[in-house]
Amino acid sequence: MNMDLDFSIDRLGDCLVPSPMPGSGFVSDEEAILYHNNWSEIQGLLAAGKAPPVMEVAGPRERIFFDPSRLKAGIVTCGGLCPGLNNVIRAIVLSLYHHYGVTTVYGFRYGYEGLSRRFGHGPLELTPAAVNDIHEFGGTILGSSRGPQDPADMVDTLERFQVNLLFTLGGDGTLRGAQAIHQEAARRGLNLAVIGIPKTIDNDISFIQTTFGFETAVAEAKRSTNGAHSEAVGARNGIGLVKLMGRDSGFIAAFSVLVDNQVNFCLVPEVPFNLEVFFQALKQRLERRGHAVIVVAEGAGQDLLAGTGERDASGNLKHGDIGLFLRDRIKAYFKENRVDINLKYIDPSYTIRSLPANPRDSAFCLLLAHSAVHAGLAGRTNMVVGFWNNTFTHVPISLAVSSRKKIDPHGRLWNSVVASTGQPLDLNSNPAPETKE
Amino acid sequence: MNMDLDFSIDRLGDCLVPSPMPGSGFVSDEEAILYHNNWSEIQGLLAAGKAPPVMEVAGPRERIFFDPSRLKAGIVTCGGLCPGLNNVIRAIVLSLYHHYGVTTVYGFRYGYEGLSRRFGHGPLELTPAAVNDIHEFGGTILGSSRGPQDPADMVDTLERFQVNLLFTLGGDGTLRGAQAIHQEAARRGLNLAVIGIPKTIDNDISFIQTTFGFETAVAEAKRSTNGAHSEAVGARNGIGLVKLMGRDSGFIAAFSVLVDNQVNFCLVPEVPFNLEVFFQALKQRLERRGHAVIVVAEGAGQDLLAGTGERDASGNLKHGDIGLFLRDRIKAYFKENRVDINLKYIDPSYTIRSLPANPRDSAFCLLLAHSAVHAGLAGRTNMVVGFWNNTFTHVPISLAVSSRKKIDPHGRLWNSVVASTGQPLDLNSNPAPETKE
Amino acid sequence: MNMDLDFSIDRLGDCLVPSPMPGSGFVSDEEAILYHNNWSEIQGLLAAGKAPPVMEVAGPRERIFFDPSRLKAGIVTCGGLCPGLNNVIRAIVLSLYHHYGVTTVYGFRYGYEGLSRRFGHGPLELTPAAVNDIHEFGGTILGSSRGPQDPADMVDTLERFQVNLLFTLGGDGTLRGAQAIHQEAARRGLNLAVIGIPKTIDNDISFIQTTFGFETAVAEAKRSTNGAHSEAVGARNGIGLVKLMGRDSGFIAAFSVLVDNQVNFCLVPEVPFNLEVFFQALKQRLERRGHAVIVVAEGAGQDLLAGTGERDASGNLKHGDIGLFLRDRIKAYFKENRVDINLKYIDPSYTIRSLPANPRDSAFCLLLAHSAVHAGLAGRTNMVVGFWNNTFTHVPISLAVSSRKKIDPHGRLWNSVVASTGQPLDLNSNPAPETKE
Amino acid sequence: MNMDLDFSIDRLGDCLVPSPMPGSGFVSDEEAILYHNNWSEIQGLLAAGKAPPVMEVAGPRERIFFDPSRLKAGIVTCGGLCPGLNNVIRAIVLSLYHHYGVTTVYGFRYGYEGLSRRFGHGPLELTPAAVNDIHEFGGTILGSSRGPQDPADMVDTLERFQVNLLFTLGGDGTLRGAQAIHQEAARRGLNLAVIGIPKTIDNDISFIQTTFGFETAVAEAKRSTNGAHSEAVGARNGIGLVKLMGRDSGFIAAFSVLVDNQVNFCLVPEVPFNLEVFFQALKQRLERRGHAVIVVAEGAGQDLLAGTGERDASGNLKHGDIGLFLRDRIKAYFKENRVDINLKYIDPSYTIRSLPANPRDSAFCLLLAHSAVHAGLAGRTNMVVGFWNNTFTHVPISLAVSSRKKIDPHGRLWNSVVASTGQPLDLNSNPAPETKE
Repeated sequence: MNMDLDFSIDRLGDCLVPSPMPGSGFVSDEEAILYHNNWSEIQGLLAAGKAPPVMEVAGPRERIFFDPSRLKAGIVTCGGLCPGLNNVIRAIVLSLYHHYGVTTVYGFRYGYEGLSRRFGHGPLELTPAAVNDIHEFGGTILGSSRGPQDPADMVDTLERFQVNLLFTLGGDGTLRGAQAIHQEAARRGLNLAVIGIPKTIDNDISFIQTTFGFETAVAEAKRSTNGAHSEAVGARNGIGLVKLMGRDSGFIAAFSVLVDNQVNFCLVPEVPFNLEVFFQALKQRLERRGHAVIVVAEGAGQDLLAGTGERDASGNLKHGDIGLFLRDRIKAYFKENRVDINLKYIDPSYTIRSLPANPRDSAFCLLLAHSAVHAGLAGRTNMVVGFWNNTFTHVPISLAVSSRKKIDPHGRLWNSVVASTGQPLDLNSNPAPETKE
Repeated sequence: MNMDLDFSIDRLGDCLVPSPMPGSGFVSDEEAILYHNNWSEIQGLLAAGKAPPVMEVAGPRERIFFDPSRLKAGIVTCGGLCPGLNNVIRAIVLSLYHHYGVTTVYGFRYGYEGLSRRFGHGPLELTPAAVNDIHEFGGTILGSSRGPQDPADMVDTLERFQVNLLFTLGGDGTLRGAQAIHQEAARRGLNLAVIGIPKTIDNDISFIQTTFGFETAVAEAKRSTNGAHSEAVGARNGIGLVKLMGRDSGFIAAFSVLVDNQVNFCLVPEVPFNLEVFFQALKQRLERRGHAVIVVAEGAGQDLLAGTGERDASGNLKHGDIGLFLRDRIKAYFKENRVDINLKYIDPSYTIRSLPANPRDSAFCLLLAHSAVHAGLAGRTNMVVGFWNNTFTHVPISLAVSSRKKIDPHGRLWNSVVASTGQPLDLNSNPAPETKE
Repeated sequence: MNMDLDFSIDRLGDCLVPSPMPGSGFVSDEEAILYHNNWSEIQGLLAAGKAPPVMEVAGPRERIFFDPSRLKAGIVTCGGLCPGLNNVIRAIVLSLYHHYGVTTVYGFRYGYEGLSRRFGHGPLELTPAAVNDIHEFGGTILGSSRGPQDPADMVDTLERFQVNLLFTLGGDGTLRGAQAIHQEAARRGLNLAVIGIPKTIDNDISFIQTTFGFETAVAEAKRSTNGAHSEAVGARNGIGLVKLMGRDSGFIAAFSVLVDNQVNFCLVPEVPFNLEVFFQALKQRLERRGHAVIVVAEGAGQDLLAGTGERDASGNLKHGDIGLFLRDRIKAYFKENRVDINLKYIDPSYTIRSLPANPRDSAFCLLLAHSAVHAGLAGRTNMVVGFWNNTFTHVPISLAVSSRKKIDPHGRLWNSVVASTGQPLDLNSNPAPETKE
Repeated sequence: MNMDLDFSIDRLGDCLVPSPMPGSGFVSDEEAILYHNNWSEIQGLLAAGKAPPVMEVAGPRERIFFDPSRLKAGIVTCGGLCPGLNNVIRAIVLSLYHHYGVTTVYGFRYGYEGLSRRFGHGPLELTPAAVNDIHEFGGTILGSSRGPQDPADMVDTLERFQVNLLFTLGGDGTLRGAQAIHQEAARRGLNLAVIGIPKTIDNDISFIQTTFGFETAVAEAKRSTNGAHSEAVGARNGIGLVKLMGRDSGFIAAFSVLVDNQVNFCLVPEVPFNLEVFFQALKQRLERRGHAVIVVAEGAGQDLLAGTGERDASGNLKHGDIGLFLRDRIKAYFKENRVDINLKYIDPSYTIRSLPANPRDSAFCLLLAHSAVHAGLAGRTNMVVGFWNNTFTHVPISLAVSSRKKIDPHGRLWNSVVASTGQPLDLNSNPAPETKE
């Protein structure tokens, strides 16, 4: 792990305005938590004369940067749906209004398109009444879109609406867009605070242990793995195959196995597998137990698919569909081996990502949004709100987008997954030649 | 409607054994309910000198045919999964045991295969302890399969296990198989009671208003239509397309619209539609509202698909996949028309049919299974247990399989659906030529 | 059963206005369904020279009474909460607007208080936008209250707001209030249509087989009986005691037993029980199985409680709390008998009645509300919308309030309940003297 | 915070047996995580020449203490129900069996009673088949009881059954019992590993950030606060009052507020309140908004109740019922002030604690149980499995029971709660004299 992590956060200027928030509970600018929680690692750093990396703690400041009575804020949601988007929108609006007295909040429509003049989407005015019940519904009341827009165009729009505080909800690409907006605003000398709120149902942003929507997704995946199990058990040589989200990181698939221990194989992007080895293990499972349940993350086994090299509007490499691929190849394999199987394929992705947040994610979204509002009012910018070792933190966008968080194939999580499924530790070696009978 | 309906039920013989069930509440063999509930229709029949058709009422008889202390029973589940299968299995076993003292119940495995010697699936012994908790799980603990087996082979098995009462859970094909078993047993002079329990998640069996699993399916469909709506609203020109079950009858799709009034188009097998007319209506909806939700039953629009003429193991004509067809054709249509759309396709079928029964279906399954046990003990055979105007009834298998129950395109249900969606009454006429601009 | 049932419905006048609803599916005024579905009963009537009683079928008429373009409507919700109130409000507003073009709908607040000048609650204007999402929430957006108000005062308010069509959602008392409003309006010669929508979570209104909210209540009760079972099994001599709704009729309690067959005793108002007999049966159950689950309807065993004779604002006799009474008396009984027990008492009533409607109730509320709107536009009055043998019907208020619908202690439902619990058929005889040991 | 925290864990002896677990992912005995995650706190310790306290990391060891082929294990569940008990039992049995090959696991019945000869409860044999589906049900298949038993008696039983590894699931009292068993076994020179698994739905055990069942409880509480809100809004001056669990710590109440932001007052044991001040704030809320929702933890406001000094079987001081007390006092207050209110009281405690674990708690229980099994096999004893900063840890029982974890009234959590409810920061000062009018 890089020892020279720099978590320092950009600030628009000194905080001179007294916060209107009542009560105690203010966080000082010096509060920071350790990035590492392993004592020996820290001892190593100290021995090498280095300061252990620390992350700024989120929370309300006693003095803030903006005068709330004149501040106008904006919110934009980008990329795919994720449970909790409406919770975050709502909590930002209510916190700005009730905690600080900010009364003008614009909801820009359809992602960064809403900040680009050429699409002509006018913004919504987000009042407390307008957002009061939206958290009970999935999706985003603002609409969303993929892909970047011209930063100059977007900053023009923000200037036109006199927005000095922008909240961007989205993943990697969105955060890069937020960075570009920050840079363009800085170039123009504008006091624009850009606060990113990490939205990734896959929970794959670095330096952030938890992102909203992930728990809801894992919980809902149980319906699919349960169904796959019932289907598998309900037929001779029944196979239930479930594709779950996880473009680059298989956290949803892995946790779904811990939730529903009836899964027998879990395939994730981080752990390559050989088709022949996998098929043999599957065949042995059927011979032994008469049925099998497989969970595959959408990004798993991409090396097995003839990629097209295409990219989607967000710039992500377009994945081949590993779910349909496996469905067809498993059928072909067993047909060749003259084994009657009964495979049912389940792809719940859109149903999951469009759900309302479950209770835990609801509470998390609330605290996350409050942290974002506090950071913005305090004049932080070019940062994203994170969660680390039970604490909300500030993370520079540059770090958050530097690499994907992934499952460690040699770590405890993957170990627990393998122990739960009972699948072979290694599905990637050259297959042992089947012994002749 | 055929006025010469004959609901008379086959009986193995006279009921001479006093029922061991305690209490009152016995139903006399003469109790019958009217098939028609419309007074003018009955007046017409009477005027024509005809007796109105009536259905035998289900329930415990004071005298029964079999001596429960020596009776052995069997259960078999056939065809696709349906919420409630385990509830029915459990309630049959518990009713046989607790109400009548029948202690030997065989669960034949994997549908009619389990009655065929050549597959070698031994039956399970179903004790009260073995079935106690199974109703909390989806699927069927017996396993299932499609397709007929040789009646002689199956009756051999029943003779070998000394089974004189057989419960078959399944749809049309299964009921025909039950009929064949009944006929073979009758030919051999065996006292075999064959009681069908209608299993059709599509709720499409004639002379039966309600079948188990349908309510659970409709309830669960809401998750998909909700998701489709969130996805549609969350994108510019968003379209959510949901395929629901309904091979020949669109009841699930129709009721899902009544449950979730955010659906804008409902397509069912009973109401043909023209692609061009539908696309134009969809385009107008997008222009007006910016998003649309479509529900399509799997058997809708089969005339639009190049059929292969193939049949599945149950003998059902294999349908082309109208969901994928529509997805691709809608995309092509709007591409041609240079409209950017954002279509999300959701197919929740396997997740729905593998669910455990919801509370209402649970209670229904219980009463249905009790009715089946009472019918069997009373020596009825070649019949299926139905539900008509709030009453459990006996229906001859021949009537139940005589035709499919379908949505009447001119009736109240379809009218309510059209009123809820706001879709054009007629999506099938020749399209009006688009006016030139 | 009274053979001289008269289901004829009051009409304000002839229907001369063509309905603006598109399409077919109109119902003729002559359509009627039989009240009886038992053929022998009808034969008896015909033999006696009587016409079998029939109920008018609900649905849209081709010609209507009111000119929709000038009509103003009102809605009022009375009595306790019930799942589905908001669904009905919403569907009335949307049907008036979209099916007929009625654009002014007042929501009177807090029940009949909102129609009484002295409370000064101004009505809400119910637009399609205002009601669009309310069905996802429990309760009633209008608020409710118990008790009657002066009919003259209420009709004054309706005149002031030029309301000619009033929908009242409520139970017995509310329907009597609706009758009084109808009579006062008739006395004044006003063309006021008063359409009652039966709201009783207990499902205890006569001549109506199903009322909204009941299914949701039964489904939700499962959470409590499940919990009671876990608590009972989790302790030595564990007893789980659940009080469910059911003032005069024990339908919720009875169906909750059919849903969750882990219940061992079900006590309802219709079936009296003797405390000593019940306690002995309970003791025997504990000795045999080590735990027990009891469901008691709130109106059960009222003869055992020293009544106060008080009445609530709706005029219902105030019940003593049978749940707390049983809890204390069971504890005392076993203490006296020196048996350590562990009793957990669960009363989920408010949590249940404040739920949003489940999917089935949602669909039912939609069709019910549409039927009410059609009836009102057609100039029917002094009636309530019912559901009978799978058909929506019109029922005169006078009949609906003539008596309560109750469980027949000798009928099939109660028989199934007793068969499910395994409780003694008779818990009310003089207790057998305990045999000395 | 005490700087001299000693997290060192008792061990039965050296680990000489190679672990039969396949694969990598072993944890070394030296792995430890920091108790503090605040850098300045650690700097302070270092400056004072002290080593920062660290906690041993849980997980499988490469070498273990017991020979699994001869080991017999036992499990006991004590105290009140909590979602997840069956998950933990199941995962312990399956991990012992599949990871280590331990085939004899006794389930002692009804808590510590099952270890005491005088109750005569024989243990259950817990095989993989016996526990396979139990996690789908609430409660505990073993039964539970409160209160201590004689340690000598309990160790006798363990010796009789040759149990060398005991898992105790329970709270403070149970952990003290586990300590006593450990000490008695040590006195006898027995190689008995005693591993505590913290069970506290209140999440109030020190040095452990998360305990199982808490998330499920918080999620389920939403049903009650939702209901309370619907009831409150549905009546003039409606008040919904919900009592939630939380004897000494109000975490469930506090998080339920973050989940459902419709709550207007949250009362917890850690933050005292004055009745008069609270009533005035409540009255002002009603005047302003017409309704109010209150959540009160069961241990809140105990100073206001005349305590009886009684203790329950677990030795916990019996609390007066603050829920019923508040209900009655609020009613009295408003009656006195001649304000008509409409209060609904909801106490969902037994329904919540008897639920099955939700998906998140299911996964957590699995990993927790695995950690416990690994600790036991490695010969750790007199410890409890904890979770700290995203890592499973070992915690000495003595530390875990040294004090309760509580909400800090000046910390971020309480601050967020107050910000969400909008309740006055201080409900405990002398009330301002109401200004005369």
